[in-house]
Amino acid sequence: MEIDRLLIDRADGVEVAFERTKAWSTYCKDVIAYVRARIQLEQDHARKVHALVDTSRRDINKPFMPLREIFENSFDTEVEMVSHTKETTEHLRDRVVEALDARRKEHDTVRNALKVEWTKAMKACHDSEETFDKARMAVKMREDALKKARENV
Amino acid sequence: MEIDRLLIDRADGVEVAFERTKAWSTYCKDVIAYVRARIQLEQDHARKVHALVDTSRRDINKPFMPLREIFENSFDTEVEMVSHTKETTEHLRDRVVEALDARRKEHDTVRNALKVEWTKAMKACHDSEETFDKARMAVKMREDALKKARENV
Repeated sequence: MEIDRLLIDRADGVEVAFERTKAWSTYCKDVIAYVRARIQLEQDHARKVHALVDTSRRDINKPFMPLREIFENSFDTEVEMVSHTKETTEHLRDRVVEALDARRKEHDTVRNALKVEWTKAMKACHDSEETFDKARMAVKMREDALKKARENV
Repeated sequence: MEIDRLLIDRADGVEVAFERTKAWSTYCKDVIAYVRARIQLEQDHARKVHALVDTSRRDINKPFMPLREIFENSFDTEVEMVSHTKETTEHLRDRVVEALDARRKEHDTVRNALKVEWTKAMKACHDSEETFDKARMAVKMREDALKKARENV
């Protein structure tokens, strides 16, 4: 992919990639928190409306009163709306919140594993470099010693 | 009206009418309480949604994130919805709750005035009956006395 080539071309490509994936995870967390809170608000509201309708239906039950049928119908509509809200929000919770949360957890696991692997590889690389430098210096010293020995022969 | 004739034909017609108008007043009170509480619920809900959107908009503002535009749009839609809710509920409060409440107060004032008038009229009627009975008894006594006096003449 284009983005892969871009990152490979940069010296700090892997660091940038880690930074972006970390940002994606935080973004996901915020999105999930928002959707979850929004669903909660809608469910709380539905519950309160349902309670109010139950109380009001008991109060507004005098016979032969004007517009009574209209209020009864509006109560029925409210109850229907409340049950739709419940269904929809539960569906959203399952399909969006839970799914995205699972995806995010999977992402975090892979990301952390990759990070550990990358840190290990970097350390191994660094260690190799050090060993190489030391070896090169040892060779240099031996060469110098050899040169000096030859001159003194 | 038909109902007027029905009530006039009954001995307790006025009492029945008072009972029904009292019931209308109570019914109105319940209806107003319901609509008022329902409006309050809707406004509280809208306020909470607005607060949540404000917070989430601050959180979900990382650049180059997937679906970010969709969330921004959904925030705008929510804010629009909230402002519509505010307008609609305020309109309903003015047009329905306040109007019906004023109508009910007027009805109660008239009803109470009529009741006082009716009680007064009933008392006057009752007093007249009593006076009439007393007068009739007085006449009867005078007649008896006259009869006796004539017999003794």
